[in-house]
Amino acid sequence: MSFLELARKRYSCRKFTDKLVEQDKINDILEAGRLAPTAVNYQSQRVFVIQGKESLEKLKTVTPYHFDAPIAFLICYDSTLSWKNPFNNFDEGVVDASIVTTHMMLEVADLGLGSTWVGYFDQKLASETFNLPQNIIPVAILPVGYPNKEPSPMHNKRNELSQTVKYL
Amino acid sequence: MSFLELARKRYSCRKFTDKLVEQDKINDILEAGRLAPTAVNYQSQRVFVIQGKESLEKLKTVTPYHFDAPIAFLICYDSTLSWKNPFNNFDEGVVDASIVTTHMMLEVADLGLGSTWVGYFDQKLASETFNLPQNIIPVAILPVGYPNKEPSPMHNKRNELSQTVKYL
Repeated sequence: MSFLELARKRYSCRKFTDKLVEQDKINDILEAGRLAPTAVNYQSQRVFVIQGKESLEKLKTVTPYHFDAPIAFLICYDSTLSWKNPFNNFDEGVVDASIVTTHMMLEVADLGLGSTWVGYFDQKLASETFNLPQNIIPVAILPVGYPNKEPSPMHNKRNELSQTVKYL
Repeated sequence: MSFLELARKRYSCRKFTDKLVEQDKINDILEAGRLAPTAVNYQSQRVFVIQGKESLEKLKTVTPYHFDAPIAFLICYDSTLSWKNPFNNFDEGVVDASIVTTHMMLEVADLGLGSTWVGYFDQKLASETFNLPQNIIPVAILPVGYPNKEPSPMHNKRNELSQTVKYL
């Protein structure tokens, strides 16, 4: 499968079966995140694997987004490790975590599993709920599981390139 | 090629030949960015294609990073379009642009081309140099071309998973 085929196949999956995700697949998803490039290769990402009823119930309290996935990843960065752009002091940790999450999301799709990138959550509450140190900044939640239905024909509806691209 | 194989194959390529990148490959790179998911599917990304000697020379003035690629992409987001997390007002446009850039970077690798994610540039100067409106926020530069040498054996050196992953 070419990368474009994978990118076309991937969609935001919101309904999962009860089937647990096998450990070898969890390992592959984590490996995809491990391989992701980060600013100056500082690898500031910190990934929390959330599974088991108790941890998943805790996770649900930090987001209005509803999901019933058998596993979720909370992708963060360590702000004491991440690279700061000297021109504007911007913390590139959020970019690191986004690249890592994208890699993981694409590996999920390649494995035939489903996920949705959840950015709509209370970062501060997530930190408190999971007792994260202050320097660990949550960026994304990635619930993962076996999809329980096909994507709608409207999945991945996107603008034409002419609306987002300009040649200089 | 599986996604993990692609992720392993990709590396930060800093040396390019003079060969121009064909338009159909440019289109595929842009298409990969177009297919990327963004917060609430707002598609806040704005991608500028920089080619031609004059535009590329301009681009070089905004970064200390040296590259001689025949084409580069400047990936931005439109802050009037991007989703703001209501919990902390964080502008997810930087995440959108990072997902889009990751898709483009992976398509570059899938096409047998090389690229390096450049975050080390003066965003304000880039905006001025290319006369971008104030609401267009630059996030990444992606120089692209045909690699002129093989990656070093040390490419993609990464920490072990135990250093970045924790099971909750």
